[in-house]
Amino acid sequence: MVTDPQTACFEAGIKFGTLYHQFAGTPVSPDSARSLERAMAEAIENQPYCESVSVHILDGALEAELAESAADYTELTGRFMEVEMEIDYEGVRVRTRMEMEDGYPLMKLVSVE
Amino acid sequence: MVTDPQTACFEAGIKFGTLYHQFAGTPVSPDSARSLERAMAEAIENQPYCESVSVHILDGALEAELAESAADYTELTGRFMEVEMEIDYEGVRVRTRMEMEDGYPLMKLVSVE
Amino acid sequence: MVTDPQTACFEAGIKFGTLYHQFAGTPVSPDSARSLERAMAEAIENQPYCESVSVHILDGALEAELAESAADYTELTGRFMEVEMEIDYEGVRVRTRMEMEDGYPLMKLVSVE
Amino acid sequence: MVTDPQTACFEAGIKFGTLYHQFAGTPVSPDSARSLERAMAEAIENQPYCESVSVHILDGALEAELAESAADYTELTGRFMEVEMEIDYEGVRVRTRMEMEDGYPLMKLVSVE
Repeated sequence: MVTDPQTACFEAGIKFGTLYHQFAGTPVSPDSARSLERAMAEAIENQPYCESVSVHILDGALEAELAESAADYTELTGRFMEVEMEIDYEGVRVRTRMEMEDGYPLMKLVSVE
Repeated sequence: MVTDPQTACFEAGIKFGTLYHQFAGTPVSPDSARSLERAMAEAIENQPYCESVSVHILDGALEAELAESAADYTELTGRFMEVEMEIDYEGVRVRTRMEMEDGYPLMKLVSVE
Repeated sequence: MVTDPQTACFEAGIKFGTLYHQFAGTPVSPDSARSLERAMAEAIENQPYCESVSVHILDGALEAELAESAADYTELTGRFMEVEMEIDYEGVRVRTRMEMEDGYPLMKLVSVE
Repeated sequence: MVTDPQTACFEAGIKFGTLYHQFAGTPVSPDSARSLERAMAEAIENQPYCESVSVHILDGALEAELAESAADYTELTGRFMEVEMEIDYEGVRVRTRMEMEDGYPLMKLVSVE
């Protein structure tokens, strides 16, 4: 009733929801972005079937936000990051990506193999 | 390359990861369990393709924990709740469930139709 | 070395940080705002020395955001809520408030009595 | 009506509530503990009046938990960490500490100077 590729995609979705909602709201600045990227990736890589996670916090977008608001830091949200993830469930490889599209962070399946 | 049922399962996974990691850690007691259940369900139902969410906080498990620790509240975690969710993506209906299995909260696909 | 009023203020700050960072990022819409307000208040009222919490999600601000983005929901953040809290520690009553000031959510002590 | 030492203590409490509820629930293992410690400290140091934050994830406690459950990772919670923080508000120096006491993570003021 449920196939391995479907379960692989379900697992990939869990990781994305986890990454986003665990870390959204974290105080972030260009100075702390590198340590946060690394902690986010390593935290999610702990989860089952998660082969690799890459988090890229967008310094340019952060700096633009801080320049506009004259603040030293802001809260992490989707428009400040790009994420790529690979899930391997029973030999099914799922690639996923989160990036901005029309002003919204969109999580999407890139491939299921 | 990616089918509608696969995307439906990915979307279902996102909702589960969101629900768990947004609300895990919330201070909870039997007195506040009902409002938290409702807020969790209604929050996740806002997300795209999410037909229905049902959250059941397990008063018995909460009370056992509080009795043991002599505290008035604890932090929400997987062993204090059961969750059911239905996702509808392009006509594909996905049913999912989270419950304890071998001492761990397990999120699983129940059916993809 | 540490006075009761100081501890009362420390406890008040803990509750504010908890409320904000537990719930920031929650998917919210005008339809789900009431249940979220209630769950946030009841969750924090579980914590020690917390007499009362009032959370007001600002429907007008939410609706303006949704109209601009053509989305059905957004993520909860400081500009969509006002919060008031009363802490009572050893007879010291602390009143606190969070509201927007110069475009930022500011948590502040209103009175210590 | 509100003194600088009281505000300093309020600010210290905000940072503790933030740190705890932003990061509680993060998937953590001995392998990912170092990056999480650093990200937590640097994230909170972004906040106003926060002079320094030190987070120590307790590998021994983590390993004991994982040995008992035969899992590879667990969720971060108070019993797996010790935190120290210094706040400086208008010349008032507040030292705070979180550590386990009677089975509970207790956040406390160490000194206000």
